[in-house]
Amino acid sequence: MAKHHQIPIVDTDIHERVQYQDILEYLEEPFKHYITNCHWMQEKHMPYTQPATAGVDRADAVLPDGRPAGSDLAFMQKQLLDDIGHEYGILTSALDPSPSSMHGWYEMAASLATAYNNWQIEHWLEKDERLYGSVHIAAQERDVAVKEIERVGSHPKMVQVLLPIDDIMWGDPYYHPIFEAAQKHHLMIGMHHNEPPVYYGKWPRYFIEWHTLIPTAHMKQITNMIFNGVFDKFPQLGLIMIEGGFTYIPHLMWKMDQQFRDLRHEVPWLKRKPSQIMKDQVRITTQPAEELTKKEFESLIDQMGSEEMLCFSTDYPHWDFDSPSRALPSMDPALKQKIFADNAKAFYPKLPGGREEKHGRASRLQNI
Amino acid sequence: MAKHHQIPIVDTDIHERVQYQDILEYLEEPFKHYITNCHWMQEKHMPYTQPATAGVDRADAVLPDGRPAGSDLAFMQKQLLDDIGHEYGILTSALDPSPSSMHGWYEMAASLATAYNNWQIEHWLEKDERLYGSVHIAAQERDVAVKEIERVGSHPKMVQVLLPIDDIMWGDPYYHPIFEAAQKHHLMIGMHHNEPPVYYGKWPRYFIEWHTLIPTAHMKQITNMIFNGVFDKFPQLGLIMIEGGFTYIPHLMWKMDQQFRDLRHEVPWLKRKPSQIMKDQVRITTQPAEELTKKEFESLIDQMGSEEMLCFSTDYPHWDFDSPSRALPSMDPALKQKIFADNAKAFYPKLPGGREEKHGRASRLQNI
Repeated sequence: MAKHHQIPIVDTDIHERVQYQDILEYLEEPFKHYITNCHWMQEKHMPYTQPATAGVDRADAVLPDGRPAGSDLAFMQKQLLDDIGHEYGILTSALDPSPSSMHGWYEMAASLATAYNNWQIEHWLEKDERLYGSVHIAAQERDVAVKEIERVGSHPKMVQVLLPIDDIMWGDPYYHPIFEAAQKHHLMIGMHHNEPPVYYGKWPRYFIEWHTLIPTAHMKQITNMIFNGVFDKFPQLGLIMIEGGFTYIPHLMWKMDQQFRDLRHEVPWLKRKPSQIMKDQVRITTQPAEELTKKEFESLIDQMGSEEMLCFSTDYPHWDFDSPSRALPSMDPALKQKIFADNAKAFYPKLPGGREEKHGRASRLQNI
Repeated sequence: MAKHHQIPIVDTDIHERVQYQDILEYLEEPFKHYITNCHWMQEKHMPYTQPATAGVDRADAVLPDGRPAGSDLAFMQKQLLDDIGHEYGILTSALDPSPSSMHGWYEMAASLATAYNNWQIEHWLEKDERLYGSVHIAAQERDVAVKEIERVGSHPKMVQVLLPIDDIMWGDPYYHPIFEAAQKHHLMIGMHHNEPPVYYGKWPRYFIEWHTLIPTAHMKQITNMIFNGVFDKFPQLGLIMIEGGFTYIPHLMWKMDQQFRDLRHEVPWLKRKPSQIMKDQVRITTQPAEELTKKEFESLIDQMGSEEMLCFSTDYPHWDFDSPSRALPSMDPALKQKIFADNAKAFYPKLPGGREEKHGRASRLQNI
């Protein structure tokens, strides 16, 4: 099936699109009533023009009948999974805003997350064996979020708990029970940006500024998770940073190691260098990949000191979709096999062919 | 004079320390009264422990009589300028908070800036021929700030206007008259962090998190200045980013170029690729340099695509001072000459030996 590039890929960022009417039947009352009759809608919107003619989506991914891109499984199978030759794809949703990103009314947020999880399982995960899913939660209501992880986290096709990259720093000890529940169910943590307020809580003048700075929001979450000791406390947990690119990684590793050397007295629970924690437990999806030359890409991998960290992603059906045959420069076949498939399999314990299946769970983290 | 490293260095970040009592005689009434009798003091303080036994300073730089590090010219001459063999040093002050970083009462901020400039000229710039200075302003009160630049900007030893890296994005068109005044007086813009609110306006739990993320605040300001067209509007202006390190530069160049390719319709005033604007008009001081190997450092310079961008700095007398003989790995002598001296001379038009003196002002920016 691998048509363009010889490797059956694992795609770590696919956005299936939901519309409110799709999940109404899964929504409890009174929340269904608030949407159906009271015209409730999400509170967050960007002030900018949309970047492309189909908004944030590829124009050719919009359904012929006008439904939004990513909303139809059959169309996605044809345009993405069959055409490219996906072995597996991880669904990361386009639930906007993420329930964990809402500023208030957490009962509605939690109810949306539950309905969404049920809809995702029934309409996607149990309809295509290639697709794996993300548990959505309203993390602000921590204890309710833990119950939702307990409720659906053992579903065989749920591989991660999704948290938005926004104005909450998830490394705070208040949220650690969420990580405990995730670890218990062999779920990783996926973080995906959700309109992070990159300018100190305010919007910059232009979309291009905001979009350029998304990696800074990823850097904050990684830093916060590491220095607050999440990875030492939960040694079986992994974090994957989705849709922020990867070229900031060497800088962040060097900077954290430098600061750790100088200031480790402040965080005595850290037993490994931050760069080692990243190599052991943090993974990065590739999209949106900058246009690097082969030499630049190779020096970047060398600076990272690891070939295991990058996991290919398309970000289908968004406007800045990365094609597996064109987004990254040519590279050594062994490295290509890792980035396009094996790194993700080694990371997600519940993916078939992953390290858990091969060697048992304990071998996943080599350096602890 | 160059004792440790053979090159008479240009040090682009030296903090001379002021105490309120030092500038009282330069302060206008009623502002002097507010400090002397009403116990006014700055509003901003970090919630953390200080990183070193002398707070933010080197313990061996504190004066024998107990006065703070950096507050005495004779001591600084002996410990820094003579010992290391400085050809030139750029003073960046420890006026805390920067007048441009105060949240209110801008008349006090402007009055402090004026007093500080007068004190700096009399006690430092006119007392040691190696020392060059920074014009302090209260940029929030833009038109008053422009007048202050007009007042002291033509002093032969003032080489830049200093702006804090904090919660104001300086690329906003409201602040462009400041850049116009700076350009008129052949002053560059120096940006130095001033407790930037790296976590969306809130403090993270630990100093190590905040300090790790300072480069993200630098990235925001560069992005904002470039996409808001400052460098095309003021082609003789240069920006130097002080005390944020430099390993984020390749990532930022790649990311901005990628976004420019996709989204340039939003910023039609940009005539060059962002990475080219950086090579032409943005410079980066080296401290705090991460511990890079020679190979890592060389690949980083290669990724930057320019040997002209880095300017060595010690950050004397701060706790994380960079020694010119130890902070950077060994490198090719021609590159070393650039980073330790020539890049800063080429950047600052008013430094002796700079490009302006050699070839006239117009040749400084080669690519416009």
